[in-house]
Amino acid sequence: MTPIKINHVAVVVEDVQAAIGFWRDALGLPLQHTERNEAEAVEIAFLPVGEGEIELIQPITEESGVARYLAKKGAGLHHLCIEVEDIAAALERIAASGAELINDTPRSRPDGTLYAFVHPKSTGGVLLELYQLPAK
Amino acid sequence: MTPIKINHVAVVVEDVQAAIGFWRDALGLPLQHTERNEAEAVEIAFLPVGEGEIELIQPITEESGVARYLAKKGAGLHHLCIEVEDIAAALERIAASGAELINDTPRSRPDGTLYAFVHPKSTGGVLLELYQLPAK
Repeated sequence: MTPIKINHVAVVVEDVQAAIGFWRDALGLPLQHTERNEAEAVEIAFLPVGEGEIELIQPITEESGVARYLAKKGAGLHHLCIEVEDIAAALERIAASGAELINDTPRSRPDGTLYAFVHPKSTGGVLLELYQLPAK
Repeated sequence: MTPIKINHVAVVVEDVQAAIGFWRDALGLPLQHTERNEAEAVEIAFLPVGEGEIELIQPITEESGVARYLAKKGAGLHHLCIEVEDIAAALERIAASGAELINDTPRSRPDGTLYAFVHPKSTGGVLLELYQLPAK
């Protein structure tokens, strides 16, 4: 099955309000909402564009994975998320190809979205997230 | 004017054929075509997904900008391209906000697509390309 679309592109930033100053105020994207996720220790701004969205992610502690990424690599493009129809089938096919999965089986967000990450070493350097949205 | 969509996400890779082994063969994206651009010293594979596409870019010399990026930063997400209706108006608005443009005025590709880059220091670390497609 062919993947459906780019669901989002995630950007790690030092300061989400400053980044909104560019992506919303200068570039002109709508700001759908911002969200503080205490579990992952990040603040995220969601800016839709076409059928996808830009997510601006700021770490709010110094210990999270995203905070360590920011400290090591600096601000910038963090991961790409592609939406598929059947994430279990996609992961099976990717694993069968010999590519390395970070999540062998899909994990679930509170809204029912299933997700899993593919390791950058198998994609040409890209941290790739797959999404399967809940049935409506 | 609100930007239209994510036109493409560009990935710099060591080996475009190996990367196609993941993005086409394992993930299942169609490979639209590959192109050797001697002027920019890159080989590019274009893989459409939804209304956008993934571009896998391999430098074919060691002197190009992309080759230096690869040597310095390693393979991975390189830039994000967002399509707008009126690139001149978008650049004017971005410049007026105080953001730094790499191209103050749009440049033109052979097919008539207008493009310009915004400097990562103004976007939260993202090399951002803007596209305006030629009128049909």
